[in-house]
Amino acid sequence: MTHRELYDRTLPMIQPVAPAWIAKAYQRLDSLTKPRRSLGYLEELAARLVAVFQQEQPKIEGKRVFVFAGDHKVVAEGVSAYPAEVTGLMVKNFVGGGAAINVLARRAGAQVEVIDIGVATDPGELPGLLRLNVKRGADNIARGPAMTVDEAVRAVAVGIERANLAADNHVTLMATGDMGIGNTTPAAALLAVLLDLPAADLVGPGTGLDAAGVARKRQVVQKAVAVNQARCTDPLSALAAVGGLEIAGICGLCLGAAARARPVAVDGFISTAGALAAMRLCPAVKDYLFFAHMSAEPGHRKFFEKERLRPIVDLDMRLGEGTGAAIALQIMENALAIYNEMATFQEAGIAPGA
Amino acid sequence: MTHRELYDRTLPMIQPVAPAWIAKAYQRLDSLTKPRRSLGYLEELAARLVAVFQQEQPKIEGKRVFVFAGDHKVVAEGVSAYPAEVTGLMVKNFVGGGAAINVLARRAGAQVEVIDIGVATDPGELPGLLRLNVKRGADNIARGPAMTVDEAVRAVAVGIERANLAADNHVTLMATGDMGIGNTTPAAALLAVLLDLPAADLVGPGTGLDAAGVARKRQVVQKAVAVNQARCTDPLSALAAVGGLEIAGICGLCLGAAARARPVAVDGFISTAGALAAMRLCPAVKDYLFFAHMSAEPGHRKFFEKERLRPIVDLDMRLGEGTGAAIALQIMENALAIYNEMATFQEAGIAPGA
Repeated sequence: MTHRELYDRTLPMIQPVAPAWIAKAYQRLDSLTKPRRSLGYLEELAARLVAVFQQEQPKIEGKRVFVFAGDHKVVAEGVSAYPAEVTGLMVKNFVGGGAAINVLARRAGAQVEVIDIGVATDPGELPGLLRLNVKRGADNIARGPAMTVDEAVRAVAVGIERANLAADNHVTLMATGDMGIGNTTPAAALLAVLLDLPAADLVGPGTGLDAAGVARKRQVVQKAVAVNQARCTDPLSALAAVGGLEIAGICGLCLGAAARARPVAVDGFISTAGALAAMRLCPAVKDYLFFAHMSAEPGHRKFFEKERLRPIVDLDMRLGEGTGAAIALQIMENALAIYNEMATFQEAGIAPGA
Repeated sequence: MTHRELYDRTLPMIQPVAPAWIAKAYQRLDSLTKPRRSLGYLEELAARLVAVFQQEQPKIEGKRVFVFAGDHKVVAEGVSAYPAEVTGLMVKNFVGGGAAINVLARRAGAQVEVIDIGVATDPGELPGLLRLNVKRGADNIARGPAMTVDEAVRAVAVGIERANLAADNHVTLMATGDMGIGNTTPAAALLAVLLDLPAADLVGPGTGLDAAGVARKRQVVQKAVAVNQARCTDPLSALAAVGGLEIAGICGLCLGAAARARPVAVDGFISTAGALAAMRLCPAVKDYLFFAHMSAEPGHRKFFEKERLRPIVDLDMRLGEGTGAAIALQIMENALAIYNEMATFQEAGIAPGA
């Protein structure tokens, strides 16, 4: 199957979750020994997970965080506090197990899969690294498109394939992660285009720019949107024009997981750009996405406001890698444990009350 | 040692955490392979935990959630959606392992200790139940004091003793929990007195009152504060006058844990009332308290605003039992794992950058 065929076949497989399953889940939740709906958002998460799995007693088997790594030639415009070679160095850190995502994934009982989908310099053979590079860095979006539409489809297909393989291997909970020096710049540009918001509203300090740096970055993002505006005729073209390889991979992971009826914890600002592209390609994908956290990157809040979505936690994190998603995985699993394991009023011999 | 002696000896043992330990913790956090402070509140939690433990590489051994159960004769005023006997039934559910706190504590790897400190009807011998009843239900606070000062000291001492025994048994992370039909009423009254806020601002639906019920409850809380105002001359007297047995037990647990340099995850609205009493008895206790979540009970927000504190999560939970604290335990342990387990820039061969 070509990348394009995989992409074309995946989208129609994604179906909205059935309201009947949500209702069924709440029926059980309301029978458990607690005041009705007193576990708040935890119950909403549980109901949606049950509806995604379409099982009366869903069991979590494998959990996996997918860290897509890619570079961005737009760093030449001075938009990042770190030099581009850090992307490759961090890839080595991921496979070595020393990064924040390794620690938090371990805590969540999740595997970490590291994918070179767009790193500028080949990291070479590394145990644990998946070498699925589509392009050695996205092109400078301040001067032209990040990639061709064909390259975007290939990167999306890599994400779909990772989700499919994981589903085949009994991974029941998936999570997105990213690594890419400079990638808050394309993420801001893509969110601006897909949310139809002023680019300036979506720009923040990223890994640690000062005020002058943020002002410069704001101009770069505005320029990127202006230069590429005519190309952004549909979500896929926008992803190709102002996105990035890792953002496209994340988009693909969301699509692939949804097509296989697996929930996805979506990490922070970068992952949200990929997830939003997936939502624009196929609105039903939203039912499978669990937005993990509110990033400290200020543009993230705009996304939640505009799309009327709610993050699971808000801890001022702004690291990426899937770190927020790993924390959300624990809370999602807590929610499902409540649903599966609590005693009912009947079992405990208590009248349901209010 | 009498209860009063235990109480009197514990307060002076509580020392503020050393700023030097916080600084030392941040020195390590800033050396780890991530942009400086990019893990946000997680890093604040880690630094404070290190300062509480006063260890370069703190290790978590045991974790324990203490569920203090007590009744409130103020339910005669019609302030609760559930009848009083549910307290005792839920105590049975806790020792049977079927309640929400059992599920979430299991997920956090924590033990659950269930303490009858003030249940109205003796639940009898039950495997796993600690029968440390000080009084068979707090008296009706709309008509007079909840208990005598001596009873309050005894209930606080029960909490201190539980913390001491846990610390002796290598419990390194503690968490508070409560069960008590009607206990948002004394919690609101005690918070009103200790925060010096209008009682009306702190009253909410509890386990599920309707608007008329909330209006009635508001009058009851206002009456409780008015009737007991003259008795509330100091924090201990206030705790006795408008508190409850389980609230006093939670207060004691916070004091006892802090005296033994153990961090405490403080659950929701009820636990906050107990923790605030501890803070008023001994301001240094605050350094040891980790407020777990923002309850859906609307008065809880007033506490955070007035005391300028920040909850770890906000999931619209309003169940109590320690359920929010159990979730916070996982996040606190995540924070410490980040601190202990991540690679430094030097180890990973990366320049620290910004």
